[in-house]
Amino acid sequence: MTIAKAFKGTFFHAPVCGQIEVLRDVLIRCDSDGRIVDIVHPDTPGYAEAVFEDRSAARLETLAHGTYALPGFCDLHIHAPQWPQLGKALDVPLEVWLQKHTFPLEARYSDLGFARRSYEGLVDDLLSNGTTTALYFATQHQDATRLLADICLEKGQRALIGKVAMDNPQECPNFYVESTDAALRGTSDFIDYVRGLKTGRIKPVVTPRFIASCTDAALEGLGDLAKRCGCHIQTHCSESDWEHNYVLERHGMEDTDSLDRFGLLTRHTVLAHANFISESNMDKISARGAGIAHCPLSNYYFSNAVFPLKRALEKGLRVGLGTDISGGPSASILDNMRWAVASSRALHDGVDARLHWDNRGLRGSQIDWRTAFHIATRGGAEALDLPVGAFEKGRYFDAQLIDPQAKAGTIRLMDDLDSDEEVLQKIVYTASKANIARVWVAGDRVAG
Amino acid sequence: MTIAKAFKGTFFHAPVCGQIEVLRDVLIRCDSDGRIVDIVHPDTPGYAEAVFEDRSAARLETLAHGTYALPGFCDLHIHAPQWPQLGKALDVPLEVWLQKHTFPLEARYSDLGFARRSYEGLVDDLLSNGTTTALYFATQHQDATRLLADICLEKGQRALIGKVAMDNPQECPNFYVESTDAALRGTSDFIDYVRGLKTGRIKPVVTPRFIASCTDAALEGLGDLAKRCGCHIQTHCSESDWEHNYVLERHGMEDTDSLDRFGLLTRHTVLAHANFISESNMDKISARGAGIAHCPLSNYYFSNAVFPLKRALEKGLRVGLGTDISGGPSASILDNMRWAVASSRALHDGVDARLHWDNRGLRGSQIDWRTAFHIATRGGAEALDLPVGAFEKGRYFDAQLIDPQAKAGTIRLMDDLDSDEEVLQKIVYTASKANIARVWVAGDRVAG
Ligand SMILES: [Zn+2]
Ligand SMILES: [Zn+2]
Repeated sequence: MTIAKAFKGTFFHAPVCGQIEVLRDVLIRCDSDGRIVDIVHPDTPGYAEAVFEDRSAARLETLAHGTYALPGFCDLHIHAPQWPQLGKALDVPLEVWLQKHTFPLEARYSDLGFARRSYEGLVDDLLSNGTTTALYFATQHQDATRLLADICLEKGQRALIGKVAMDNPQECPNFYVESTDAALRGTSDFIDYVRGLKTGRIKPVVTPRFIASCTDAALEGLGDLAKRCGCHIQTHCSESDWEHNYVLERHGMEDTDSLDRFGLLTRHTVLAHANFISESNMDKISARGAGIAHCPLSNYYFSNAVFPLKRALEKGLRVGLGTDISGGPSASILDNMRWAVASSRALHDGVDARLHWDNRGLRGSQIDWRTAFHIATRGGAEALDLPVGAFEKGRYFDAQLIDPQAKAGTIRLMDDLDSDEEVLQKIVYTASKANIARVWVAGDRVAG
Repeated sequence: MTIAKAFKGTFFHAPVCGQIEVLRDVLIRCDSDGRIVDIVHPDTPGYAEAVFEDRSAARLETLAHGTYALPGFCDLHIHAPQWPQLGKALDVPLEVWLQKHTFPLEARYSDLGFARRSYEGLVDDLLSNGTTTALYFATQHQDATRLLADICLEKGQRALIGKVAMDNPQECPNFYVESTDAALRGTSDFIDYVRGLKTGRIKPVVTPRFIASCTDAALEGLGDLAKRCGCHIQTHCSESDWEHNYVLERHGMEDTDSLDRFGLLTRHTVLAHANFISESNMDKISARGAGIAHCPLSNYYFSNAVFPLKRALEKGLRVGLGTDISGGPSASILDNMRWAVASSRALHDGVDARLHWDNRGLRGSQIDWRTAFHIATRGGAEALDLPVGAFEKGRYFDAQLIDPQAKAGTIRLMDDLDSDEEVLQKIVYTASKANIARVWVAGDRVAG
């Protein structure tokens, strides 16, 4: 086997939900594709020789003492065009948010100059935030969506991208709606375009925005297309009272069942939010093998309840985290880990102090930071069936380096008071973008 | 009037709860104490002359184009000794948190070398995070608490500091408990020490940790002492089910009433948390004029409900924000503004999707970012009766400069898409420590 690159340092990851593994002073060796081919522990015979060999071949990167590498984050739900709107328009109702802010902004991506400035800013931003894999909703536009694929490829981010389909004139504004034919043909054309790029790093995604924004004809056509091309699918599912009830009224069933009927609930599907799914919805999602993008921060703004994360994990659902830019006002999966822990605690405890504790919350709903770290990395990778998210043979070296001493950083370590696992806990709770010193995708340096 | 310093630039503040005021390209002039004596708007006759005069006298600081100044933050609840523990030990029950982590850490402050390293790190950290006024719980220790006062004075932070009183052997561990006499004498001695510093910038605070940690004799003595010396008081109030019920059992009344009985509920009191206060508790707090330190992030970890912030504001209570280091795993009031908005929305909407919307939350509880910004600045200042928190004549120039373009920063502005107020909204939702370019207390540069 040929070693192309090697990294020596201390690595934290969570291959198993709820458990942390510390790889202290190990040597991780990758092939020319950036796949991990060997992890050599310092107490293994041959460790010193391997380090010497990699150093001599000028393929060794030694991570500075006192820094720690984590798997890169998977962000399972991003509206790429909404990046310029991050942190804005958050105190208005969904209807105003869509019609007055979001749809007009997305419509601007017919301007390719605007699209380029925005998408370049976005991809740089996410890479600097440690997001090595991104699942994107783009816009209706063919050209701007192709440009997003080009930019991700150029900057090295692992990306799954969907041209958004939205052809229902009842729910889309006249300045930002397409014909059913355009929705289907545009999706198909974009799939061809991405496949023509001949890269494993960018994948096309069939993307009905949500049931409300699509006609039944489009949903049916997209289901057929997804089956034919075997590619990923993403859409919103049971996000809020309004959205959940809309589907009940229009289709006489819940989102999960409706999507299933159209062939849109598959092993390759990622459902955004899913806050209002029932136990039987969970069972169906589990049976089909679909994944869920949990967007805890966004849910405070545009949902009306907390996603039952713990229950979903107990039932074996594949769950990752999403920022839901710009419904969630943060581009950071670090932030979203914290919101995931906090919102799960709020669901557990309840919120209204006037109620007796026995009736206040949904007992047993809380997760801890270890679970949050798992879903931010390995969980997201599993939901996409991608070999990333942990440091293991056969997985790509998608990683980020945390420097607790970084200027403008926000991690406090003092007098060696912390164990390795406590250092990771502090990273999960207190690290910020300034602490992310370097980011790699498939062994290639993409930020820092 | 003698001008000692002047600042020219664009300033955002919120003198009235719920409203934002933009002072674009104004000149703010301060006297030698750092108090604002004049604010000159660019359309005022004499503006150009005033700018020329201040520049000629080499007392003008011009804030760079594209940067924005905000009032410095008031953090109304900080456990100074717990700073090394930020982001740790968050998934354990309160009892374990106190006995296994927190009390042993606090006990270490008998070591003055440790105390110095920690307190210097803390004060630097908070100043860099824009916290110009801090209300601190220190430890039982006389020497370390004096050292904290010295360090704040040296570094220029406006600080209110309490030697913690905790003499109840039933609730305090034997390695970290004091006699009633030591609690009272120590508090009195510390007040004398701070007053001997002859500075307006540091104030002593009578600090019974919480009712559970004090004997009735100590509570009574501290109430008398507070009355005699006229100084501030701080303690925890109705934080969690356990704590609230403990006081009900021991004193047959709620925290608010019990504190009032001991003379500890006054115009100079700041109550931390107050999540479980009833309407009648609010009325009493309002009647006495006490303030509240709302600690939204901490409450996700160590309370079991959300503080009814909106209701408290409707009833005219004076409320500011607190990080509750290290019960809250962030040193940032920026973060806590976001948690305040989010938790108020969770209280409004409820959390459990299985319940019908009508029965899920406490309608009308949500606040928006304008209110969060107000309580983080002016609200906190009001709760302490300090003339800071806004840019107005007679108030000290305690301020922070936000640079949206800062390297490692997290604010995204693009193509001038945002109005001034939208820029501030983006700051509130997305700024991080890296965006805080400079910090002043009373016109003196203290960070950046
Ligand atoms: Zn979305
Ligand atoms: Zn506290």
